[in-house]
Amino acid sequence: MFPQDIIIKKRDGGALTKDEIEFFARGVTDGKFADYQATALLMAIFWRGMSAQETAWLTDAMMRSGEVIDLKDLPGAKVDKHSTGGVGDKVSLILAPLAVACGLKVPMMSGRGLGHTGGTLDKLEAIPGFKVQLSVPEFRAILQKVGCAMIGQTPQVVPADRKLYSLRDVTGTVECIPLICASIMSKKLAEGIDSLVLDVKFGKGAFMKKKADALTLAQAMVAVGKAAGKPVWAQLTAMNQPLGRAAGHTTEVIESIECLKGHGPADLMEVTYSLTGHMLVLGGKAKDTADARRQMEAAIANGSALKVFREMCVAQGGDPKVVDDYRILPAAKKLLEVKAAAGATGFVSEVDALKCGHAIMALGGGRAAVTDRIDHAVGIADLIKIGEPVQAGTRLCTLHVNDDAKGARAEALIREAVQFSAAAPQLEPLIQDLIR
Amino acid sequence: MFPQDIIIKKRDGGALTKDEIEFFARGVTDGKFADYQATALLMAIFWRGMSAQETAWLTDAMMRSGEVIDLKDLPGAKVDKHSTGGVGDKVSLILAPLAVACGLKVPMMSGRGLGHTGGTLDKLEAIPGFKVQLSVPEFRAILQKVGCAMIGQTPQVVPADRKLYSLRDVTGTVECIPLICASIMSKKLAEGIDSLVLDVKFGKGAFMKKKADALTLAQAMVAVGKAAGKPVWAQLTAMNQPLGRAAGHTTEVIESIECLKGHGPADLMEVTYSLTGHMLVLGGKAKDTADARRQMEAAIANGSALKVFREMCVAQGGDPKVVDDYRILPAAKKLLEVKAAAGATGFVSEVDALKCGHAIMALGGGRAAVTDRIDHAVGIADLIKIGEPVQAGTRLCTLHVNDDAKGARAEALIREAVQFSAAAPQLEPLIQDLIR
Repeated sequence: MFPQDIIIKKRDGGALTKDEIEFFARGVTDGKFADYQATALLMAIFWRGMSAQETAWLTDAMMRSGEVIDLKDLPGAKVDKHSTGGVGDKVSLILAPLAVACGLKVPMMSGRGLGHTGGTLDKLEAIPGFKVQLSVPEFRAILQKVGCAMIGQTPQVVPADRKLYSLRDVTGTVECIPLICASIMSKKLAEGIDSLVLDVKFGKGAFMKKKADALTLAQAMVAVGKAAGKPVWAQLTAMNQPLGRAAGHTTEVIESIECLKGHGPADLMEVTYSLTGHMLVLGGKAKDTADARRQMEAAIANGSALKVFREMCVAQGGDPKVVDDYRILPAAKKLLEVKAAAGATGFVSEVDALKCGHAIMALGGGRAAVTDRIDHAVGIADLIKIGEPVQAGTRLCTLHVNDDAKGARAEALIREAVQFSAAAPQLEPLIQDLIR
Repeated sequence: MFPQDIIIKKRDGGALTKDEIEFFARGVTDGKFADYQATALLMAIFWRGMSAQETAWLTDAMMRSGEVIDLKDLPGAKVDKHSTGGVGDKVSLILAPLAVACGLKVPMMSGRGLGHTGGTLDKLEAIPGFKVQLSVPEFRAILQKVGCAMIGQTPQVVPADRKLYSLRDVTGTVECIPLICASIMSKKLAEGIDSLVLDVKFGKGAFMKKKADALTLAQAMVAVGKAAGKPVWAQLTAMNQPLGRAAGHTTEVIESIECLKGHGPADLMEVTYSLTGHMLVLGGKAKDTADARRQMEAAIANGSALKVFREMCVAQGGDPKVVDDYRILPAAKKLLEVKAAAGATGFVSEVDALKCGHAIMALGGGRAAVTDRIDHAVGIADLIKIGEPVQAGTRLCTLHVNDDAKGARAEALIREAVQFSAAAPQLEPLIQDLIR
C-alpha cells in the first residue's frame, strides 16, 4: 500500500477502505505517511469529503493511534460533554460538578483557547495551583475520588489527532466536517466514556457560522457515536452573543462559581441545565428532562454541586478558597466601565460575540498562536445582553485591564460589538435543536 | 504573507496574485513554504485549476527560482524543441543537428526516461564517452562551437521545478495541466531560447491519453510563451504506435544516425521534418514549410546534418566513430526475432506503444524508479508498423536481449502489442494539429 495510491483514490472521488484509512492514521503517527503526503490527502478529503462509514473508520483509527482509557472498573455511568467552543462558554466548569452531584462520573479532557474562543484548561489555570496536565493514573484516581476530573490531552492519547491537527492548522484544511468530526470524536471516545453530549455552536462567535454546517457536523458526530456503539446526543446552540456576562479567565471562573451558588445568568444556566440534563438522562440518572431539572436545581440549592467543585480543586492542586474569596484569583490593575454614549436610547440589538472575543485578545487574554502566553487577570464582566434597555450612561460592561492602551483598544471593540435599536429586538432561541 | 492564506484562497477557488505565486515558487526552494504546505496547495491547484495568467506567473516565478541562461551574446536564432514523450521518440537526436545544419542554434536541456518512455539523455549516454552533465559555461561553449548541445538539467537551473516535481510525484498531483505546463515551460524558458516548438503527444503510449487533454496543455503552453514574449508553436502528434522502428537506447541511436544518413523510416522523418521545419520558420531561416523542407532534405543529402551530429559527439566527449561503426555501441548478447505465429494473416492493425514500452522495461532498458540503472544494449529494432501486411513467419521485431527470461517476457508483451486485422486498417494521421 502506497500513500500516493490512497491520495489519488480520494482525489478522484473514491471511497477509502478501512485498511487504507488505518494505514493513513497509523502512518501519520509512525512516519510511513510523510507530512507532505498527509496534507495532500487532507486537501483531497476537504475537496471530496468522506462518507459516514469513512468518517467512522477514521475516528476509530485515530482513537486507536494511542492509549484508549479503560474506565470499566470505575463504577457508575461515565458521561462527558464537548462544546465546539464560543465566547464566554464556561459551561464545563459548572456542568461537571453538577452532573457528579446528580450521580454521574465525568471524565473530561479539554483543550486550550486559540483565537477568539477561550479554553477550559486556561480558565481552570486561573485558580492558583490548579494542575491540568495530569497522567492517566492521576486522572483515574481523581475520577474515583471526586467523580469528575478536568485535564488536558496526554501525549499518549490520540497522537494522530495532535499530528493531523497541527498539519491542518497550517494547510487550510481545518474547516472540513469529517475531519473535525473525527478529531473531536476520536479524543472523546478515547476517554473511556459510556455516552456523550455535544454542544455544537453556530453563529457570529462560533467556529461554524451557519446553522446548516453545525447541523451537518452534529449529525456526523452522532453517526460516529452510533458506529462506535456509544449513544451521542448533539445540541445546536446559537452563539451570536457571549454566553453569560463574563468572558476571560478570572472573570469566567467567578461567574462559574456564582452559577454553582445559584446566582447564574439566565442564558448560561439554560444551556448548562439543558446539556447536563441530557447527560443525566443518557447516564440513566434521570427519567426525563423535567426529572433532571429538579435534581439539578436541588444540587445547586443544597450546595452539593459547589462541594464537588471544591473537591475537584483540592484533588487537582487548586486552592479551594477560591470558592469563598475571589480575591485569590489573578486580578487586573484597573476596572474600566464602558458606558453607553450620550444620545444612546432603546434596546441592545446585538452583542457581537466575535468582537467581544477580539476584545479579550486585545486585552492580552487570548492566544493568536499556540505558543502565546495569556493574561488570566484581564477580561470582560457585567456584559449587557441583547434585549436589555439602554440610555446614555448605561454600563455596557466592565473591562478588567492591565494596560491602558490595550484597554482602549478593547473598549473600542466593545463599542463596535454592542449595537442598539429603538424597538425591543426579536430574541432568537438559544437552544435550537437536539440531534440523537 | 502566510502559506496557509494562499492555500485557503486557492482551496476556495480564488485566483492567486503574482506576489502570492512568487512567494510560493520562491518559498518551496528556500523553505519558507514547507513541503506539507506546498503539497496542500498543489492539491488545491489540482482541484481548482489555474487561469492562464496564474500559469504564466507560476512559470515565470519557477524560471526565476534559479539561473536563467542568457544567450544574447551568441549570434543567431536560438530555437529549441520539447516533446512530452513517447515510445521510440528519438526526434531530438536528429532534429538538433538538422536544425543547426540549416542555420539555427539549438540549446537543448533534456530529461531522463521514467516508466515506459525513454529519455534523450539516456539514449545519448549509449554512445561511449558522451557526457550530458555539463556546466552552463561548457553548454555555452559547445553551442558556440557546434551550434547545438544536449545536456541534462543543471542544479542551478529551475530548482523550484525539481522540488515541486519530486513532491507531485508522491502526492497524486502529477496530472494537472497548469502544473505540467509551468514545469515544462519554466525549464525551456530558462535555456535562453528565442522561440520554441513543442511536440505534444497523445494516445496509448503518451502521458496524455486523450487528444482533448493534449490540446488543452498545448494551448496553455503557447499562452505561457506569449506571456513571456517568446513565440511558441505546439504540434499535436498521435502516439499510439512507437515512432520509427526502434525503441531502447543503442537501437534508437542507430536509427537516429540512419535518419541523418537519409535512411529514416517514414513516420519518424515526417515528425522530425515537421518539427524542425517549424523551428526554421520561427527562427527566420525558412520562409515557409516548403522552403524549410527543401533545406532539410539538402542538409541530409549533403551530409551536413550528420556532420553536426559528429561534431556534437566530439564536443560532448562521445566517440564520433559511432557514426561509421555501430559496433562501438553497447551490444546485447542475443538478437531474438519475434515472428507472426502460424495462421497469422492480413494486416497489422495495432502496435500498442505502451506495451512496447513495457517490453523495453521487461528487457531491463527502462526505469521503474529514478534510481534504477538501465541497460543501454537491450531494446527493440525492426518493429513492424500499423498497416503492414503479415502472414505466418513475418518478423514483428528483433529484440536485443541480455537475459533469456527477460527476453521471453518482452516477447510476450510484443505479441500482445501487435494485433492483426483481415482488412487494411484506416491509418490515423500522425500529425493532427498545430497550435500557435
